[in-house]
Amino acid sequence: MTDLRTVRGMRDLMGDEMRVSDYLVSTAVSVFKLFGYEPLDSPAVELWETLSAKGGEDVEAETFKFRDKGDRDVGLRFDLTVPLARIVASNPHLPKPFRRYAIGKVWRYDRPQAGRYREFMQADVDIVGSASPAADAEVVMVAIEFMERVFGRDFTVRINDRKVLRGLTETVGVPEKYSMECLRAIDKLEKIGVDEVMQELRTRGISESQAGDILQKITLRGRGEKVIQEMREVVGTSPVGAEGVAELEMMAQIFHDCGVEDLVEYDMSLARGLDYYTGPVFEVRYLKKPEIGSVAGGGRYDHLIERFDGPPTPATGISLGIARLIDAAMSAGLHERVRPVLDAFIAPIDESMMRHAFRIQRELVRAGLACEVDMMGRSLKKMLEVADTRRARYVIIVGPRDIQRGEVSLRDMQTKQTESVPLTGLSDRLRV
Amino acid sequence: MTDLRTVRGMRDLMGDEMRVSDYLVSTAVSVFKLFGYEPLDSPAVELWETLSAKGGEDVEAETFKFRDKGDRDVGLRFDLTVPLARIVASNPHLPKPFRRYAIGKVWRYDRPQAGRYREFMQADVDIVGSASPAADAEVVMVAIEFMERVFGRDFTVRINDRKVLRGLTETVGVPEKYSMECLRAIDKLEKIGVDEVMQELRTRGISESQAGDILQKITLRGRGEKVIQEMREVVGTSPVGAEGVAELEMMAQIFHDCGVEDLVEYDMSLARGLDYYTGPVFEVRYLKKPEIGSVAGGGRYDHLIERFDGPPTPATGISLGIARLIDAAMSAGLHERVRPVLDAFIAPIDESMMRHAFRIQRELVRAGLACEVDMMGRSLKKMLEVADTRRARYVIIVGPRDIQRGEVSLRDMQTKQTESVPLTGLSDRLRV
Repeated sequence: MTDLRTVRGMRDLMGDEMRVSDYLVSTAVSVFKLFGYEPLDSPAVELWETLSAKGGEDVEAETFKFRDKGDRDVGLRFDLTVPLARIVASNPHLPKPFRRYAIGKVWRYDRPQAGRYREFMQADVDIVGSASPAADAEVVMVAIEFMERVFGRDFTVRINDRKVLRGLTETVGVPEKYSMECLRAIDKLEKIGVDEVMQELRTRGISESQAGDILQKITLRGRGEKVIQEMREVVGTSPVGAEGVAELEMMAQIFHDCGVEDLVEYDMSLARGLDYYTGPVFEVRYLKKPEIGSVAGGGRYDHLIERFDGPPTPATGISLGIARLIDAAMSAGLHERVRPVLDAFIAPIDESMMRHAFRIQRELVRAGLACEVDMMGRSLKKMLEVADTRRARYVIIVGPRDIQRGEVSLRDMQTKQTESVPLTGLSDRLRV
Repeated sequence: MTDLRTVRGMRDLMGDEMRVSDYLVSTAVSVFKLFGYEPLDSPAVELWETLSAKGGEDVEAETFKFRDKGDRDVGLRFDLTVPLARIVASNPHLPKPFRRYAIGKVWRYDRPQAGRYREFMQADVDIVGSASPAADAEVVMVAIEFMERVFGRDFTVRINDRKVLRGLTETVGVPEKYSMECLRAIDKLEKIGVDEVMQELRTRGISESQAGDILQKITLRGRGEKVIQEMREVVGTSPVGAEGVAELEMMAQIFHDCGVEDLVEYDMSLARGLDYYTGPVFEVRYLKKPEIGSVAGGGRYDHLIERFDGPPTPATGISLGIARLIDAAMSAGLHERVRPVLDAFIAPIDESMMRHAFRIQRELVRAGLACEVDMMGRSLKKMLEVADTRRARYVIIVGPRDIQRGEVSLRDMQTKQTESVPLTGLSDRLRV
C-alpha cells in the first residue's frame, strides 16, 4: 500500500483555500506593480554557502539541507531575502534603487503546528539601494494598500526600530556585545511571557534591575507621533537611539500625510526574530477573531548584501505570509466572493453531438466566456444537476434536431426557462 | 569569499525573461479558467514512496532525492502529474470529471544543457475521470487556445496514440513484453537517429526485419483524417490498434469542427518518453527558428491513479513547459510588448517634499495608476533621466512653492512640456 500522505508539515491546497490563495497573490502582484516593483524569481534550491551566510544560530536546525549528487551541500531556501541579497551582490550594476517583488515557496524545518507549515508561500517587496526611511515607509505603504484591498481596515501595522531598542539597552547599561541577544529575548515576549524573558535576559549577563527596566520600558506602545516623542525620552542621550527615533519620525510624517496614521501603531516591544535587521522593523496583524498572529513582517537590513561580498548596500523590505493571510481571508468569508462562475455548461445529448459541443465551446472561449463540455454521456436531467453544482449561468443543450436547424436549446439557470436560439451570435447572446 | 553562484542547472529569472514568464503564466491561467479548470497546489517535496510509484527505470537517477531530519526518504517532484495522481487517489469522492490546473516548479537531475534546466516551471491541465477521447481533444484544444493567444499560428500539435503503436508492434510480431521497450526506443528517434534506434531495437529481442519494418512504418505523418485511415492499414487486424485509430478519429472530428485541423499533425513516430501513457499522446512544437523543440506535451494515463491504490480512474493531460516557451516568446520579440510603463515618476525636489510625494503616490495608486517616488535625493535633471529609463509617461515635480499653492509641475515626457496643475483631480488628469 502506497503511503498517500504529504510530507509532514506540508499540504495540498485546493477548492476554496486554493482560490483564496490565488486571489491574494494576484492582488499582491497588482499592488506591487502599481508601486513600480519588478518581478524576480530565483531557484528553490540554493548552495549551502549562500543559505548559511545569513548568520544566526538557527539556520542549520531550521533548513531542509541535503547533499546533491555532485556531493555539494545545498538546501531549500527559508526566505526570499537571502536569494535577493545573493543576486544583488552578484549583479553590482543593477540600477539603484532596485525595487523587486518575488512570490514563491520557502521551507522551514519548524515543528508543525496550527498555522505553521514546513512549506509556505511568501510575497515579498524590497527596495535595495536606498538608506532613506522613506523606503521603509514605502514598503509599509505597499503592505497597507494590499491589506486595505483585501481586508478593509481590519488590520494594524506595528512599527519599531532596532536602533531605538539598541538605544534603550545602551541607556540601561547593557554591554554592546549582549545587545543582539537582548533583542532576541525581547522578540519572544509574546510567545513565552514576561517571566521567561526576564529569565533569559538574566542568564545573558543582564542584571535583574536592568532586565526589569527593559521590560518596563518596552511596554511603550500606541498610535500617533506623540509615542515617538516618548521613545525619544526612553533612549536618552544614546546617539544610535536618537537615529532610530529620527527614522521613525520621518516614517510617521509620511503615514500622517497619506492619511493612514490610524492604521499604524508604534510598539517598543517589537524586535522581529531575524538577526539581519538593522533599523525600522514592522509587522502587520489582522485584527478580527480568530487570533491569527502576524500576517506580514519585515524591516531594514543594511548589512546583509555585504555578507555576500557585495558593496555596502542599504535595503529594506516586507514579506506577506500567504498561509496566514489565507486563514484570515477565509475567516472573513472571502472564499464566497471568489468562487468561479461558468458562463455556460454545454450538454451534448449523445456522443455524436460532441463535435458540435466543442465547436460551440471554441467560439465561446474565444469570446472570453467560461464554459465546459460534458463528456460523461449523462442524461439531460443529470447534466442539469451538474451544471447547477458548477454554478453555470446557462446550459446549452446540443441535440441533433436543433443542430440541423442551426440552433441550440438555451436554458437560463436562474429563470429555468429554455428556448431555441440560433448558433450564430450565441456568444453575444450569452454576454448580455 | 562566498560562492555567489546558483546551484548548477538552476537559474535566476529577471528583467525581460521574467516578465515574459509572468505573461505566459497569466495567459495560461486565463485560458485554463475559461475551460472550467480549477487550481490545485501541492508541495514541492513528496515522500519517496509517492515519487517512485510512477515506475520506470530513471526515477532514482533523475530525482533530487534526500533524507529528511526525521530519517524519511523524500524528493523534489519531477512533474505535476504524480502529485495529482496521489491527490486523486486519496480523495476518492472528488466529483468527476475533475478538471484541474497546476502551475509550479519541478526538478530533474538531468545533465544541464541549452534549454534544459534542473529546475523549471510547468503549467498543466488534466481531466480526471473521463475515458472519452473528447477529454484528450479538450486538453489539446486548451493548449491550442494558449498557443494562438501567444504565438498566432506559428506552431503545430503532433498527435499519436500509444495503442496505435502497440497495434503496429503486434502486427509486426514483437512479443507483448517488449512492446514498452520498443516505444522507449522509438521515442529516442529524433535524439539519436535511425541507426541507433535500430541498434536498440535489435538488442531487445526484435529481429532486423521487424525493426526495419517498424522504422519504415513510423515515418507515416501528415495532416487531415486521411492519415488516420493510413494508420488503420498499418495496424492491420490488431484490436488494440483499431481502438487507437478510433480514438484518433474522434479527436480528428473535433479538431475539424473546431477549425483547427491545419494546426494538427498525426505522427506515428511520436511515442513520448514516460512509461505511464496508455492512449493518445501529444506534443506542441513552435515552428519558427531557432529550433526550440517541444514546448508542451502530454497524453492519456489511465492506470497511474491505480498505482496509488485508487480505483481505476482514466485521466489525460497536457503540460506547458514554461522555460522553452520563454525562449520561443523571446525569439518572437514578445518581451518588447510586456515591458512595464509607469504612469508617473514622482520627483520631490528636496527631502522636505517627500511626505507630499507619498501623498500624491497614495492617491494615484488608489486610482490604479502606476507610479514611483524618487528617494535618492537626486537633482531634477538626474530624476528626469531616471524617469526616462523607467518609461514614465509623466514626471510630477513636487516643490515647496507649488505645494503651497496646492499645485505640482507636470511634465509630459512625450511632448517635453511642463505645466502647473492643481493637486486636486491629478489622477483624472493623468488618466486621459
